Amino acid sequence: MSLRIAITPGEPAGIGPDLVIKLAQKSWPVQLIAVVDKTVMEQRAKELGLSITLLAFNPDEAPQPAPAGCLYYLQVDKEVDVTPGVLDEKNGHYVLETLRLASEKNMDGTFDAVVTGPVHKGIINRAGISFSGHTEYFAQQSGTSDVVMMLATEGLRVALVTTHIPLEYVSRAVTKERLSKVASILHDDLKNKFGIEHPKVLVCGLNPHAGEDGHLGREEIDTITPTLNALNQKGMNFIGPLPADTLFQAKYLDNADAVLAMYHDQGLPVLKYKGFGNSVNITLGLPFIRTSVDHGTALDLAATNKIEVGSFDLAIREAIKLATEKAQSS
Amino acid sequence: MSLRIAITPGEPAGIGPDLVIKLAQKSWPVQLIAVVDKTVMEQRAKELGLSITLLAFNPDEAPQPAPAGCLYYLQVDKEVDVTPGVLDEKNGHYVLETLRLASEKNMDGTFDAVVTGPVHKGIINRAGISFSGHTEYFAQQSGTSDVVMMLATEGLRVALVTTHIPLEYVSRAVTKERLSKVASILHDDLKNKFGIEHPKVLVCGLNPHAGEDGHLGREEIDTITPTLNALNQKGMNFIGPLPADTLFQAKYLDNADAVLAMYHDQGLPVLKYKGFGNSVNITLGLPFIRTSVDHGTALDLAATNKIEVGSFDLAIREAIKLATEKAQSS
Repeated sequence: MSLRIAITPGEPAGIGPDLVIKLAQKSWPVQLIAVVDKTVMEQRAKELGLSITLLAFNPDEAPQPAPAGCLYYLQVDKEVDVTPGVLDEKNGHYVLETLRLASEKNMDGTFDAVVTGPVHKGIINRAGISFSGHTEYFAQQSGTSDVVMMLATEGLRVALVTTHIPLEYVSRAVTKERLSKVASILHDDLKNKFGIEHPKVLVCGLNPHAGEDGHLGREEIDTITPTLNALNQKGMNFIGPLPADTLFQAKYLDNADAVLAMYHDQGLPVLKYKGFGNSVNITLGLPFIRTSVDHGTALDLAATNKIEVGSFDLAIREAIKLATEKAQSS
Repeated sequence: MSLRIAITPGEPAGIGPDLVIKLAQKSWPVQLIAVVDKTVMEQRAKELGLSITLLAFNPDEAPQPAPAGCLYYLQVDKEVDVTPGVLDEKNGHYVLETLRLASEKNMDGTFDAVVTGPVHKGIINRAGISFSGHTEYFAQQSGTSDVVMMLATEGLRVALVTTHIPLEYVSRAVTKERLSKVASILHDDLKNKFGIEHPKVLVCGLNPHAGEDGHLGREEIDTITPTLNALNQKGMNFIGPLPADTLFQAKYLDNADAVLAMYHDQGLPVLKYKGFGNSVNITLGLPFIRTSVDHGTALDLAATNKIEVGSFDLAIREAIKLATEKAQSS
């Protein structure tokens, strides 16, 4: 079995190209294909003082890993030249095209997964394209109505019921319908994509102390508990709602496959703390496998050689693991 | 220098008495005085199969530590006999009287600090006493309008702008006035009680990614930033608002004295995770030193000998540290 995994380096003025070039210095057990303008990569490698040989991807050849120092690429033409650290909205359409193509080639089975580098939302929007993030874009491209953001680091996975919305709106966004959909997607993907036969998930309450029997808020009683009960009656295994400041302890986490947090800052600070900043972002609910780095474009570090490949490395390894699991179970 | 530190074991049917008896098996460098009914302690020690000698506290004697296996006590008469694990509202007034007396004797200088064990809010209220927690009670007893809850574990302190309120109300509770008061109390107490000359505090944003320049909420722009700027102009050192999922990493925390989180589940999950559940709750802004365990009454574990003294031990040690600092600086 050999797999093909697409990589989109993201914003060309940021550290995405640097990370991909550095990671291509070692050999990988699968065929990695950067969806990119070849010249952007060649220029950046030169600026970094690294050597890289770019090999044109041919879908008609059998998948094969590239040797260390080599990288397959699928060409997307940039609009204008790239200066490291300097955003240029003229390349907004270029960035989006790399995503579109990676998505299309995952949908048609050419690729087995996609790993995305950091994009700059602002500059894509300034190019006249409405873009709220990779996750939403891939959902739209694949006609998926509900996706779930999950972050993972060694020993901990945290999925979120709500993601990038103001805190003020979180309470009303946690509806029975949303919670039920997110929890079901999480359960199904842990089972089918992660190969966990009976996923056990710890669920945070929305309020401090999980509402303390209604004294600190009623969402646990009115929304969360009935929804979890209904799912558990279908044979799923959701434990909670539990106080968020209790459940994130080894004695509970060690016996669970994931945590479902109600909102961003309830779940992610522990995960980032535990992972020393090295975590991978996995989109659940899509018809294909997508993992991502969990950091920004770091424009000021582009072409400086002062970067850490940790999160991108982890994102590729996680994509390989998931794609392997999928290939073996199908 | 010798210090006197009051201990209130809290709910007599819970594990508070057990913890105090276990901790009195070793010697301490200060005089610990349990504010308690002597017979409750004697009965529990018997049930635990531990030996303890209770010594009547005499305020006219010079402070002196008790030998291992001995404990000073200041008598408060219970109302009814105590059965481990069984709440009885008839002892509600007894519990409250231990707190009142400890508070009074801290206010008049007899004691140098108080360390509180877990109480059961429900049973005190069922006794006909309106009681929302130790912190609020001590604030009221001492005529203090604003207090701050801070939790600490080895290497991390987290103070909260809002504490035990439903998540839905957090956004509107984070006002300029509240933030300014909490931040000032935190700064002053870190300086005066913890002996940190120039406290540096990392401040979380309220929204995910600290609002991402207003795209994910405006509280950072409208409330937090101007308030921190005003405080920093007075010579304080508040850094932020920062994304909560970024700042809780060693590279940032190692250079800071505390974190100021906007709400309960933003700050405490990391702290509890880091501290393996062993953290101490410190009330800032009171005219006396108060530390506390950070767990509940654990009724089912009372008199079973299956308890961990970690948090109570830490709470006593932290009180000794703070009282020593205070004694030395005055």
